[in-house]
Amino acid sequence: MFVYERFCQWLGHLKLSRVILLVTVILFVVPLFTHYYLSKYESMSGLKGANSMRHTLEVLGDISTTNVADLKLRIEEMLRIKASVSTELRELEAKRGRLQREAAAASLKADSAKAEYARAAAELQRLRVSADQARIAQLEAIRRDSPELAPPVQILPSFPPSILPPVSSSAEVHCRMFSCFDYSRCSLTSGFPVYLYDPDVYAPLASAEVDGFLKTTLRQTLGYNAHLTHNPNEACVYLVIVGEAFPFDKSPLSTTDTYKLLLNETAVKSLPYWGGDGRNHVLLNLARRDLSVGSGDAFKGASTGRAMIAQSTFTHTQFRAGFDVVTPPALGPPGGDVWADCAPIAPARRKYLLSFQGSQPTPKVQYTEQDKSLIEHLQKIANSAPASDLFLLQFECDPPVENSASQPIGDWALCGTDRSRRALLRDSTFVLILAPADSRYTTTALLQARLYEALRSGAIPIILGGDGIRLPYDEVLDWSRATLSLPRSRVTELHFLMRALPDADLLTIRRQGRVLWERYLSSVQAAVDALLATLRTRLLIPPRPAAATIGAPAFNESYFPPRVDPPAVDAEPEETLGPLEAPYPSPAYRRNYSVGLVHGYDLWNNWGEPFALYPQLPWDPVVTSEARFMGSAAGFRPVGAGAGGSGREFSEALGGDRPREQFTIVILTYEREAVLAAALARLRGLPYLNKVVVVWNGPSAPGAVSSWPESGAPVAVVRAGRNSLNNRFLPYSLIDTEAVLCVDDDAHLRHDEIVFAFRVWREHRDRIVGFPGRYHAWDLNFNNGFLYNSNYSCELSMVLTGAAFVHRYYLWAYWRALPAAVRDLVDEYMNCEDIAMNFLVAHITRKPPVKVTSRWTFRCPGCPVTLSADETHFHERHKCIQFFSQVMGYTPLLSTQFRADSVLFKTRIPHDKQKCFKFI
Amino acid sequence: MFVYERFCQWLGHLKLSRVILLVTVILFVVPLFTHYYLSKYESMSGLKGANSMRHTLEVLGDISTTNVADLKLRIEEMLRIKASVSTELRELEAKRGRLQREAAAASLKADSAKAEYARAAAELQRLRVSADQARIAQLEAIRRDSPELAPPVQILPSFPPSILPPVSSSAEVHCRMFSCFDYSRCSLTSGFPVYLYDPDVYAPLASAEVDGFLKTTLRQTLGYNAHLTHNPNEACVYLVIVGEAFPFDKSPLSTTDTYKLLLNETAVKSLPYWGGDGRNHVLLNLARRDLSVGSGDAFKGASTGRAMIAQSTFTHTQFRAGFDVVTPPALGPPGGDVWADCAPIAPARRKYLLSFQGSQPTPKVQYTEQDKSLIEHLQKIANSAPASDLFLLQFECDPPVENSASQPIGDWALCGTDRSRRALLRDSTFVLILAPADSRYTTTALLQARLYEALRSGAIPIILGGDGIRLPYDEVLDWSRATLSLPRSRVTELHFLMRALPDADLLTIRRQGRVLWERYLSSVQAAVDALLATLRTRLLIPPRPAAATIGAPAFNESYFPPRVDPPAVDAEPEETLGPLEAPYPSPAYRRNYSVGLVHGYDLWNNWGEPFALYPQLPWDPVVTSEARFMGSAAGFRPVGAGAGGSGREFSEALGGDRPREQFTIVILTYEREAVLAAALARLRGLPYLNKVVVVWNGPSAPGAVSSWPESGAPVAVVRAGRNSLNNRFLPYSLIDTEAVLCVDDDAHLRHDEIVFAFRVWREHRDRIVGFPGRYHAWDLNFNNGFLYNSNYSCELSMVLTGAAFVHRYYLWAYWRALPAAVRDLVDEYMNCEDIAMNFLVAHITRKPPVKVTSRWTFRCPGCPVTLSADETHFHERHKCIQFFSQVMGYTPLLSTQFRADSVLFKTRIPHDKQKCFKFI
Repeated sequence: MFVYERFCQWLGHLKLSRVILLVTVILFVVPLFTHYYLSKYESMSGLKGANSMRHTLEVLGDISTTNVADLKLRIEEMLRIKASVSTELRELEAKRGRLQREAAAASLKADSAKAEYARAAAELQRLRVSADQARIAQLEAIRRDSPELAPPVQILPSFPPSILPPVSSSAEVHCRMFSCFDYSRCSLTSGFPVYLYDPDVYAPLASAEVDGFLKTTLRQTLGYNAHLTHNPNEACVYLVIVGEAFPFDKSPLSTTDTYKLLLNETAVKSLPYWGGDGRNHVLLNLARRDLSVGSGDAFKGASTGRAMIAQSTFTHTQFRAGFDVVTPPALGPPGGDVWADCAPIAPARRKYLLSFQGSQPTPKVQYTEQDKSLIEHLQKIANSAPASDLFLLQFECDPPVENSASQPIGDWALCGTDRSRRALLRDSTFVLILAPADSRYTTTALLQARLYEALRSGAIPIILGGDGIRLPYDEVLDWSRATLSLPRSRVTELHFLMRALPDADLLTIRRQGRVLWERYLSSVQAAVDALLATLRTRLLIPPRPAAATIGAPAFNESYFPPRVDPPAVDAEPEETLGPLEAPYPSPAYRRNYSVGLVHGYDLWNNWGEPFALYPQLPWDPVVTSEARFMGSAAGFRPVGAGAGGSGREFSEALGGDRPREQFTIVILTYEREAVLAAALARLRGLPYLNKVVVVWNGPSAPGAVSSWPESGAPVAVVRAGRNSLNNRFLPYSLIDTEAVLCVDDDAHLRHDEIVFAFRVWREHRDRIVGFPGRYHAWDLNFNNGFLYNSNYSCELSMVLTGAAFVHRYYLWAYWRALPAAVRDLVDEYMNCEDIAMNFLVAHITRKPPVKVTSRWTFRCPGCPVTLSADETHFHERHKCIQFFSQVMGYTPLLSTQFRADSVLFKTRIPHDKQKCFKFI
Repeated sequence: MFVYERFCQWLGHLKLSRVILLVTVILFVVPLFTHYYLSKYESMSGLKGANSMRHTLEVLGDISTTNVADLKLRIEEMLRIKASVSTELRELEAKRGRLQREAAAASLKADSAKAEYARAAAELQRLRVSADQARIAQLEAIRRDSPELAPPVQILPSFPPSILPPVSSSAEVHCRMFSCFDYSRCSLTSGFPVYLYDPDVYAPLASAEVDGFLKTTLRQTLGYNAHLTHNPNEACVYLVIVGEAFPFDKSPLSTTDTYKLLLNETAVKSLPYWGGDGRNHVLLNLARRDLSVGSGDAFKGASTGRAMIAQSTFTHTQFRAGFDVVTPPALGPPGGDVWADCAPIAPARRKYLLSFQGSQPTPKVQYTEQDKSLIEHLQKIANSAPASDLFLLQFECDPPVENSASQPIGDWALCGTDRSRRALLRDSTFVLILAPADSRYTTTALLQARLYEALRSGAIPIILGGDGIRLPYDEVLDWSRATLSLPRSRVTELHFLMRALPDADLLTIRRQGRVLWERYLSSVQAAVDALLATLRTRLLIPPRPAAATIGAPAFNESYFPPRVDPPAVDAEPEETLGPLEAPYPSPAYRRNYSVGLVHGYDLWNNWGEPFALYPQLPWDPVVTSEARFMGSAAGFRPVGAGAGGSGREFSEALGGDRPREQFTIVILTYEREAVLAAALARLRGLPYLNKVVVVWNGPSAPGAVSSWPESGAPVAVVRAGRNSLNNRFLPYSLIDTEAVLCVDDDAHLRHDEIVFAFRVWREHRDRIVGFPGRYHAWDLNFNNGFLYNSNYSCELSMVLTGAAFVHRYYLWAYWRALPAAVRDLVDEYMNCEDIAMNFLVAHITRKPPVKVTSRWTFRCPGCPVTLSADETHFHERHKCIQFFSQVMGYTPLLSTQFRADSVLFKTRIPHDKQKCFKFI
């Protein structure tokens, strides 16, 4: 531009006189120039409009003041200048390029330095946090004045009971634990050893032999009981199997005073550890045979000293509350699965609203007068009921049953066969159980048999005359949640009451009946275990610890697999998710003596079971909020030292209502070394990780694994006995923490996801807390059950254990509370172990699982991969749901419609505030 | 460019002959042109380099072929062309502008049409969904065969008890409910009417008058009890106040057989409704006076017919389990708040590990021999304990106390004053309660007094000899969770056991003791209510329904406030959030006869209370999964009819484990008509909304409100009696649903947020589920309590009730379970009602609240507005937390670290799938 402007200015200042000169010059120059220009122009391949023009004008401008020689010189000079300028330009271009490259490299270096710095800062931060934690832990260790509690060590007596004079019969009647039991043989730490008099050696103790089946079964089931001891000197309790009482004399008798005495008193009193008065002896009379005609009372009128009596038949005066025990009759199998005998829980209302079948012994005696009016009332109700309420009431058996005189008079005999009764009970919403007309009886074997059969088939028992009736183990079991007890005079209100119960309650009562039946009545094993557990509970003695699985180490002790540094796959280099601490096992067996007090009711009636002691339970109570700052601070890591906060304060401390803890990762793997190695490598730097337990499910030893990458925590490899998905849930003794993160070896979870899920689990310790959500959908085509569904859904009922936290307790429950048939199907299909765990937890807690944030990188949900690819996989999973439901009697799964995210996820916050996590 | 090129080409083709001509021409033309150019150039103010240059060259080019005249013409032509082109350009510009405007307008129209279409489609969808729902509801209504259950209607007897012959004393000993109680007076629907013999009219019934205080108090407290009737003809149970038994004869007696008979048998048996045998009579002997020297047994040796006995002293043989009742002594105030007498629950371990103060009567008699060895053992333990375990054991009082002979021998008298004992108990982790050495006693008034005082001060009672001891109302209360009962022989294990209990259990046991004490023992009212509730529970009769608040309607019935259409503020026009249904109240009083069975234990010992019947409870059980498709489908709205799903399927059905329901919005407002009107307008189109209850807290009537916008649901306006924030939680009878959404009138909640929170609440019915999270932070400066904190935090412990769902049950609990002092402070500060509700729910459930998604538009969290602005507000809230904690004995709040979001929130899903909500 500047060139043009100068030219114009120059034109403007031109004087006319010089113009003529100029024109003359032009006259000569233009042809020359034109010639030159044209030759040059023709040599140019492209048209360089503006530039050539500029050049031309420049030359034109110069023409006005120079002659031709000058011009030539100038042109040459200009050519030189041009060449030099273009060289310079080239050089500049090269320089620019070089500089650019250098700048790029420098910026790259700066970036990496910055990243390095961030990483280093984060590392420093982590170290600082970790050091802080270590310091606190050390302080706590110094301050701790109470020793660690280990699983209880037994303190046992070492001598047989001393001989004492026998007690008077009046004292016998008033026997209670404080007056007739010798606690000195049962230290709190004794573990409650029970000695069994061998029924083959000490027989007959009654006027009849013990039933052969019972004898074998009892010996066997007691063998499975952890409390059995073969050393009578250390025993706390001595168990005497008196044998089944059954009708001896069939002649009709009209009064109860002429019952045949069955117990052989002399034989019993000469038992070697009787000690003169039978202290700490339990005389067990399990009813089994000939129940259809009643089973008597083995101890009527006999002197039993200070021994406790356990049987199904008692009179009010005979039964010493808190001392004797009402047992169920031994009607079930010796042990094992019992679900096949049961009926499904749904529908809530069955064909018959109420059923009863039974007959009273002939000749009818005085006691039955009372029953007569009862029967009349019942029949009136049945007749006046609306058509929708079906009653089936039979007060005479068809065909008639044989009656026995040893049966308490007025007791109702069972009609038909076990099969026919079961068919009716399966169709009955409620079933009537009539107390024996002889009101002196507080329980009879026949009544207990009716209860047993009713609960088995899910008919809700209504015990008329129930205000005087005792049910099995009622000092520990809450029967009001499984049965209805009504006084006889409420018979008029019976129909009203049955109709007043809503479906949800019917189902709950039926379910509870089945739970109690399965745990405590169903098999001989269950009944005997419950008997011993009842006595143990009375004595405040904790049960034996549940056995943990000793995993066979994959490497012998001298061998250390070579460890290699993993490739740098640090997931969140710039985020501190928590301190890296030394492995810290969850405190174990701290509540041995309090769990039975604080949770005794729940152990027996709700989520627990009284047969074993566990190192921790998901329901352990919390230390109250201020106590954590007043004397019970040990282990607590409050956020911001108690002041709360987000960002850094939050990431540095677990906070919450529980003391600090860590988790164990259990990885099930099947000979996929590379996948496993990658999985282990990904764990490096994961806070709160206590240990990795690799369950090696393959037939070949993992020696084949050439490199074990560092995972940041101890890695234990155990070889499973056989290839089974159930192995994922073995309660390995290697697991030291309450929190167990189950992961598939190919599950890619981010560190922040894991830490967040761990925090959420800490609030929901009794649930499955994890990532992949699934649900059970009603089969709309066949309308007869649920199908497995992995589609996108806003409501889910399962969280798969391929990536989920579960409490360590459930690893035991998986093997102890689930029927074996469930685990067998898992083995058969090589599938569904995750569904089984969801069923188990939902059954125990009646709560849905918790799904946590979904920024996870697990195999994409819904899209088919490897194993899950084929139709078979889904087909099997449908069948699993249906089979498990059949085994449990119902589908325990419950639904949830939310997902747990971090509190400030996707929230706009001021720039000076930090979120809980950077990315989730 | 082109011009230059042509010029160059032209130069190239120029012939020399023409050049001369050209030069000549130039000779003439150039001056002229130069002149013209210069004059033109000088007239230009700015330099227009390139353009002028171009123009110059153009002209130069033309010069070569044209003469001057031509040139002039051409210049003129060019000027014309230029003018025409510029005109054309202006026109084009104008046209373009017009077109753009038109396009914008068209696009605007299209957008609005599209929006209109979306709205219409959504509306259609909503209508369709609503129609579907209506159809299902109609079908259900047709199919329903059972009538709706209403609050129970009483069925009562109408005649006094008939006269029956008296019973023999042997039958008396064996009295049980089934043998001695007349159920015919106590229909299940009777409501359990209790008749009280006026202690002034029927006196004296014992050898001493009833204590004046007790007489007045009992009459008064029974007056508050809903079961009291003044019609003896309809009564189920007759209450006879026998009066306190106190020492009559102070002469020393060495055997128990010479106890003075206190009951005036003749007077009792001539009570007008005694009916010959005292059926359904309860003889109540509340111990109060002279406890320091023991309180006897009023009924020893007396004949009491079929009457039940309620007192604190019983022998084993005298007590008829399940018939008689052990009551606590009447040591507390008549009623009202009792918290001021209690000690804080934390710290878990207090100064003394174990304390005991007491003395045995002189002369020491045979029974004390047993105690002697016990004392020796205890002293040995105390002496051998490590310094950290302090024992304070005093087996002689200082100063000595006066002994009474009527006191069961071997019973331990209380030392010192109530004040001195309380001071010691506050400092004791455990306190020893020694059973009377006379083992015939199963309970004594002194022992019960010790229990009462221990629980009041939070010293955990250890009852030595406890295996024979009965505690108050133990047929319904689970004392094993609040006390330790040990047989005497376990004294050697006592120290071990005390040390074996972890802090969390100590705090849990202490808290449970306090709960039982407050509910059932603390005041005369509590003790009498508990006595009647125990009897009622035995009879299976439901309690009376809790009274709902009848809100004073702000408008009289004939007046309808004018309703206006609200401004269009439809929040989510394109999203269907659920069907718009007719108001559907939650079914009420369905579980009158099952709640006591299924939840009897929990009502008494956990979250409930046995004193009233509620229409629904947050803990009502669910119908199992498959039962919803098999016979119990009524009310259920499964997602996708059972097949599940997201998007449309999800938005159309509530799904979950509960039947369909709606919620009520309760808005507390204080004379802010405009704010209220806006709040109501925002609710239009909100699905599942049953009703809006506006609590008008201002002194002036809301007639001032000129316009009530349509809210889409019925609006009820109630005028509060006085301006109190507690009014927000009044259990108005207007509320027909279980779910209650409490909102401040200025809370802006989106519809999708409300519907999502409602769904989450349906899974957490026992918790506060809402939006604004807050927490309690430990006061790090003073280290003596918690401060209120509303900062950003990743851990929260409260959800404010300015925008939260709570269960209707808690509205009653707020008034019945919270001490009055809490509500008084709320009134004093006009603040903290939300904190109080959080304390209440956390106390009842021991669970934290649930925070839901935070895309909400409530007043910005943390930033100060109006009321919350000033320092005072926060200062008050700190003080509230500290005062409420003091009242409850601990800070019940628990922490949570997650937020509930919809399952697919911010999740990448395939394009053919839909999320659960569009924006949250």
